[in-house]
Amino acid sequence: MKRGFGSDNHSGISPEVLQAIAGANDQHALAYGDDEWTLRLEHLFRQHFGDQARVYLVFNGTGANVLNIDAMCRSHEAVVCAETAHINVDECGAPQRVVGCRLLTVDTPDGKLTPQLVATRLHGFGFEHHSQPRAISITQSTELGTLYTLDEIRALADQAHSHNMYLHMDGARLANAAVALGCSFKEMTTDCGVDCLSFGGTKNGLLMGESVVLLNPALDVDIKYRRKQMTQLCSKMRFMAAQFEVYFNAGLWQRNAAHSNRMAKLLRDELQDVPGVRIMYPVQVNSVFAQLPKDAWHALQQEYFFYDWDEDNDVVRWMCSFDTTEEDIHNFVATLKRIMNQ
Amino acid sequence: MKRGFGSDNHSGISPEVLQAIAGANDQHALAYGDDEWTLRLEHLFRQHFGDQARVYLVFNGTGANVLNIDAMCRSHEAVVCAETAHINVDECGAPQRVVGCRLLTVDTPDGKLTPQLVATRLHGFGFEHHSQPRAISITQSTELGTLYTLDEIRALADQAHSHNMYLHMDGARLANAAVALGCSFKEMTTDCGVDCLSFGGTKNGLLMGESVVLLNPALDVDIKYRRKQMTQLCSKMRFMAAQFEVYFNAGLWQRNAAHSNRMAKLLRDELQDVPGVRIMYPVQVNSVFAQLPKDAWHALQQEYFFYDWDEDNDVVRWMCSFDTTEEDIHNFVATLKRIMNQ
Amino acid sequence: MKRGFGSDNHSGISPEVLQAIAGANDQHALAYGDDEWTLRLEHLFRQHFGDQARVYLVFNGTGANVLNIDAMCRSHEAVVCAETAHINVDECGAPQRVVGCRLLTVDTPDGKLTPQLVATRLHGFGFEHHSQPRAISITQSTELGTLYTLDEIRALADQAHSHNMYLHMDGARLANAAVALGCSFKEMTTDCGVDCLSFGGTKNGLLMGESVVLLNPALDVDIKYRRKQMTQLCSKMRFMAAQFEVYFNAGLWQRNAAHSNRMAKLLRDELQDVPGVRIMYPVQVNSVFAQLPKDAWHALQQEYFFYDWDEDNDVVRWMCSFDTTEEDIHNFVATLKRIMNQ
Amino acid sequence: MKRGFGSDNHSGISPEVLQAIAGANDQHALAYGDDEWTLRLEHLFRQHFGDQARVYLVFNGTGANVLNIDAMCRSHEAVVCAETAHINVDECGAPQRVVGCRLLTVDTPDGKLTPQLVATRLHGFGFEHHSQPRAISITQSTELGTLYTLDEIRALADQAHSHNMYLHMDGARLANAAVALGCSFKEMTTDCGVDCLSFGGTKNGLLMGESVVLLNPALDVDIKYRRKQMTQLCSKMRFMAAQFEVYFNAGLWQRNAAHSNRMAKLLRDELQDVPGVRIMYPVQVNSVFAQLPKDAWHALQQEYFFYDWDEDNDVVRWMCSFDTTEEDIHNFVATLKRIMNQ
Repeated sequence: MKRGFGSDNHSGISPEVLQAIAGANDQHALAYGDDEWTLRLEHLFRQHFGDQARVYLVFNGTGANVLNIDAMCRSHEAVVCAETAHINVDECGAPQRVVGCRLLTVDTPDGKLTPQLVATRLHGFGFEHHSQPRAISITQSTELGTLYTLDEIRALADQAHSHNMYLHMDGARLANAAVALGCSFKEMTTDCGVDCLSFGGTKNGLLMGESVVLLNPALDVDIKYRRKQMTQLCSKMRFMAAQFEVYFNAGLWQRNAAHSNRMAKLLRDELQDVPGVRIMYPVQVNSVFAQLPKDAWHALQQEYFFYDWDEDNDVVRWMCSFDTTEEDIHNFVATLKRIMNQ
Repeated sequence: MKRGFGSDNHSGISPEVLQAIAGANDQHALAYGDDEWTLRLEHLFRQHFGDQARVYLVFNGTGANVLNIDAMCRSHEAVVCAETAHINVDECGAPQRVVGCRLLTVDTPDGKLTPQLVATRLHGFGFEHHSQPRAISITQSTELGTLYTLDEIRALADQAHSHNMYLHMDGARLANAAVALGCSFKEMTTDCGVDCLSFGGTKNGLLMGESVVLLNPALDVDIKYRRKQMTQLCSKMRFMAAQFEVYFNAGLWQRNAAHSNRMAKLLRDELQDVPGVRIMYPVQVNSVFAQLPKDAWHALQQEYFFYDWDEDNDVVRWMCSFDTTEEDIHNFVATLKRIMNQ
Repeated sequence: MKRGFGSDNHSGISPEVLQAIAGANDQHALAYGDDEWTLRLEHLFRQHFGDQARVYLVFNGTGANVLNIDAMCRSHEAVVCAETAHINVDECGAPQRVVGCRLLTVDTPDGKLTPQLVATRLHGFGFEHHSQPRAISITQSTELGTLYTLDEIRALADQAHSHNMYLHMDGARLANAAVALGCSFKEMTTDCGVDCLSFGGTKNGLLMGESVVLLNPALDVDIKYRRKQMTQLCSKMRFMAAQFEVYFNAGLWQRNAAHSNRMAKLLRDELQDVPGVRIMYPVQVNSVFAQLPKDAWHALQQEYFFYDWDEDNDVVRWMCSFDTTEEDIHNFVATLKRIMNQ
Repeated sequence: MKRGFGSDNHSGISPEVLQAIAGANDQHALAYGDDEWTLRLEHLFRQHFGDQARVYLVFNGTGANVLNIDAMCRSHEAVVCAETAHINVDECGAPQRVVGCRLLTVDTPDGKLTPQLVATRLHGFGFEHHSQPRAISITQSTELGTLYTLDEIRALADQAHSHNMYLHMDGARLANAAVALGCSFKEMTTDCGVDCLSFGGTKNGLLMGESVVLLNPALDVDIKYRRKQMTQLCSKMRFMAAQFEVYFNAGLWQRNAAHSNRMAKLLRDELQDVPGVRIMYPVQVNSVFAQLPKDAWHALQQEYFFYDWDEDNDVVRWMCSFDTTEEDIHNFVATLKRIMNQ
């Protein structure tokens, strides 16, 4: 399939990652994470997230999110999140089934929670008929391609902690956020008071690699058993660890994210010239949300795969990847212009 | 780590599999299984398991087993299995947590269920206080390295069906069984009346690749949602499909399994000469269970990693892999002889 | 505690019900519903709900709702309901924990769903990342004391069925609704296309008695096992059945509900004269929601127990019971007037 | 139905209990346990179980057991119990569905665990593939009508505590045990190191009344939310509390249990004269297990309802109740003699 803008997991594997996998294919190694790659990786995560960080590799983002929720909440507790949060709309109810807890959702203008929005769900503490709010979950960068500033994250962490709650960050695209904000992972998480993190690499050039990163040691209780029980323990873990190793060590996370972010801005810029197309949110990372007439949208889908984002409001989502080229964008925008002019 | 006999997932990736992954790293592909590799794979599974076969790729064996159980049973139902079954002892209670059902376990002499043994758990049909038996689960080859004959499988399938139950096969090492029995996958599953199968490749040379194979169409209801919900949906699925493709097409499953089976027999043969070591079960596939004095066992673990299998009875498990060499076996047995002579 | 307006389960037991319990206390009876009282009751439910009705007695409303949801939905499916629905806000996440499914909530002006409101949640059919909408749940009478007309119920049932979904009715206060609408239970449920019902008596004079009433035979699959498994099977069931028997046979449901409805209208009427108190919704059954200054509200709570309903908007809820007297209302309103005048 | 020996919940309600319910039917009371009866009851439980005791009333024994398990265990943990334990065989998998944990069962000769038997399941601590043993559960008196001595209970508590585990006691028939052992509830529970207790009254003359009694304060965390979430919170709780009040205060528990125990011994004595009937276990409380020819058994079931206990071994269970009379026993044994002589 030709390169398009359907999703950042439509792209393949960064060559460095493939090499790292091949490089780890040497002799035998203990399974389930007792290998030397995973042990080295634990040190790497501490370098990038601070000494308290504890990492548990998992298969996918849903696994990371659900294991984090399970670390924070019992079934009678609840997670406050944006209505648009991946944990709410795109995991087919995994938190409900696996953890058994409630999600308390909040409508947002741009995918971002604020203390004011969160406060509307902080009711009923101590009342046994109500699920008890126990965590706030934010996505950085958000599902709408927007970003929390460090101050905004800190404010939500403070709010959480003042109510004896935790702050979880879904960082499936954390690299894109770090590049965009020009900060380290640690500055954006540990230093802001984030308690736990779903940290992903699959959308940024890995074959497969996601992780639960516990930044608050109080959460690191019996996690290994629950990772296993919820079917997220990888046997040949060295091959997942080796991917993250090159991701960190070779600066791959930065290079790939910087590129896809830059491509999204180029796409946005080129779209300015297309009458009838309206950009919906600030383009801060690697996605562009656009409103355009539905017949143009459908004609474009004949040539490029992308998701209907919001049918009621004629909004589509276009994602750039680490392997998107400038030419891809020129061709895509040229196609769209042709369609819009018909 | 030097090659040893700890587990068949201590070995790495077959070179052909790495090549297949690299070969699939071409341009973009739809995520979540809508790619051409996965589509081709569906046809391959039908070739190998019969026209009714429907396949759902998952990350690991626990995921495959739990999704199969979820396909067969509601929470008030039960699965009859051997006490030694992987679903019972090695999944940290995943079936209980994710499906919520009971396992009705049976003690066996050799890891194998028989209709007589199963019959002891087929009570209480229609009695609302008792979980309702709804499935029989067998492992082929078993956790103790033993094999069901085709007739034995058929007898259990018949028993299951006569009670309106299903027969599940945990085939984490199905390739070893097929090679040992000299039969096709279809002859060992579909043709014997198996209703659903966990079919694995990870222990036989894949990087990571397991699957749910539904052979009874009645089970193929809404599985895709539940695969997603129980966190087992892979995004860049083409890279898992490509592994299975080479596994089938290049005869890799056969070559690797035949080799590891042959190595286990060699290991057994060489162990005959070691006084004080007793082979516990017929060596039919790629594992050898041996009883030996605990001090010898512990001395050997200083040089080779392997699992304590049954501490109460001084039994250990040694597994051969697709990459085990004859020299590995000579060295291992020589080491053991040296220890036993001290 | 003196009679007040806190809840219709602050009241006790109708004398007829106590007599029925005593009357059933004769000799031995089979447990778990195989007694003659429960068998007779099944016939009574068919008389009141139509020949297809099948009844399963349970302990409480949460049990009835969760068992109904479990009858309609698998964990990957979802129930559309009002944000204010009891299943959403007042069951501490029981549906999520026990069934594992999602609730798709809708903001409503008055606690009532409409096809237009429901339609906003009917997206993503067939998309495995989204929980699949499988049921609509309405409460009759609603948690805000409002009522669906028969036509409104029928419209929601039609909508549900046209999407291969079910319509559930939470009838914890169904008697109050039937009296207010002047219709039979069957006209309000079966004849409108309701698929299943939580039918309660506890809030209308029983000691304890709730039930799952399946009106669509397709839902009557293995319910008895799941009632047991979710801890809702009563052993000495004759004493629950005997309560419902007198509830139906002696016209008790009607008499009690008519009385509490009439008391609520009287309360509303008397409140008209109290400056500063605003009635929030039409008073259609046995509750009055009122907006009043928070200091008056708190002063009144010194003398009468009642729940803060909506602190942000200064709204309280006052419920009338089968045993509320006119004098209770005069005294209550007099107290409020005194407070408001201070 | 004439009085028989099918179950101690085939009997009705003690007259004192009915009176207590009627006596509590006075005016209004707060719901969900904030009433004066429940508050008084908390003091009563402390008198009978010690100052640390905390009580949560629930509807039935399954609810009590599951809530206790939920207090002790997370889903990745396990409860060691007898194969014959009610939580294992008679709750349709409720612990698995609601808590998601495993039960590690042990075959026993008489329904009683011993430290030696328990030790066979205490393996795999720290190994993430295995459910972690976290509790031992015993039933007092057991499902086979046998009794633990205080020393035997203490030994199991010590074993549990030495492994950082808890000891749960299923006391559905605790009164019968206390009477038989001539000890107080506290001596048999708190003083022996029991951590939590399911304490029931339904089988001993109550209409409906079971409870979770936490004796180890470490377990008293967020229980009220989970009682609600697992559908076990009663609204008009005063009527359940009032039953327990008379149960304790009037010595009812003792009187009823002493009577049913005495009747069982009388039944055993009279059965000695019946050739072909073999008593299976020591008759220590209110049940008699007997082996007799299956045709006699079936002929007897034509006249009296009782359960097949163990069809494979021709064993039936006969239970005495608080209302069993000497004449009932004479008639029953006479009938059996007549049948055996045919």
